[in-house]
Amino acid sequence: MSSSAACIFCKIIKGDIPSFKLFESDKVFAFLDIQPLSRGHALVIPKFHGAKLTDIPDEDLHEILPVAKKIAQISGAEDFNILQNNGRIAHQVVDHVHFHMIPKPNQAEGLGIEWPAQATDMDKLKALHEELKSKI
Amino acid sequence: MSSSAACIFCKIIKGDIPSFKLFESDKVFAFLDIQPLSRGHALVIPKFHGAKLTDIPDEDLHEILPVAKKIAQISGAEDFNILQNNGRIAHQVVDHVHFHMIPKPNQAEGLGIEWPAQATDMDKLKALHEELKSKI
Repeated sequence: MSSSAACIFCKIIKGDIPSFKLFESDKVFAFLDIQPLSRGHALVIPKFHGAKLTDIPDEDLHEILPVAKKIAQISGAEDFNILQNNGRIAHQVVDHVHFHMIPKPNQAEGLGIEWPAQATDMDKLKALHEELKSKI
Repeated sequence: MSSSAACIFCKIIKGDIPSFKLFESDKVFAFLDIQPLSRGHALVIPKFHGAKLTDIPDEDLHEILPVAKKIAQISGAEDFNILQNNGRIAHQVVDHVHFHMIPKPNQAEGLGIEWPAQATDMDKLKALHEELKSKI
């Protein structure tokens, strides 16, 4: 199991820093965000320490979404967002992979999203598709 | 397997509507978003039809994040967001669960995020924690 002595989330997992824990298993830990965007805002994290999604073994990812789903259910949120940020420019603050479950009760609370969609360019998409297919 | 005749993503899964498919297994399908927020923007979806995360059986969720991870890797994106929206107010447009993998190459492209964090209120958090613990 990868762990980092300096990581605040690894300290929370170990119990060295207290948290409002909601769930714990061999591979996953979940707790309330103490600076919530809305009531019920929770974090679901792999115990395996890694900064980005691409650093986490597949087997440490399998249980994440079922746990996020369970917490969404018990929160009573009808509308909500699941968000996981990778990199400072992508709004990541703590360098241990974490999935936000953020209830969206109204326009003012919860996650705000800006969606700068680009025009559909079939030629570019086709070229990208060929490139990515060759890598998968 | 749940499926909806009227659902555009169910039609894509069946091949009735063409897509830039990147991956397919028994339970998961992945393809390029044709109105991307950035180069490499892809969607990873369960084949099981359901509008919200809370509608999808756990076993149909296990493979989603490993596939999103793989696509992030081959996209070459260093920074990126994983986003899944539930409900119109939470920015969901198609009512079949879908996870966005959105590369964030610069400030202008990719997902824009607004983060209206609330002040930490330990009494409220403690009461909420007690309530949620009793439900999980």
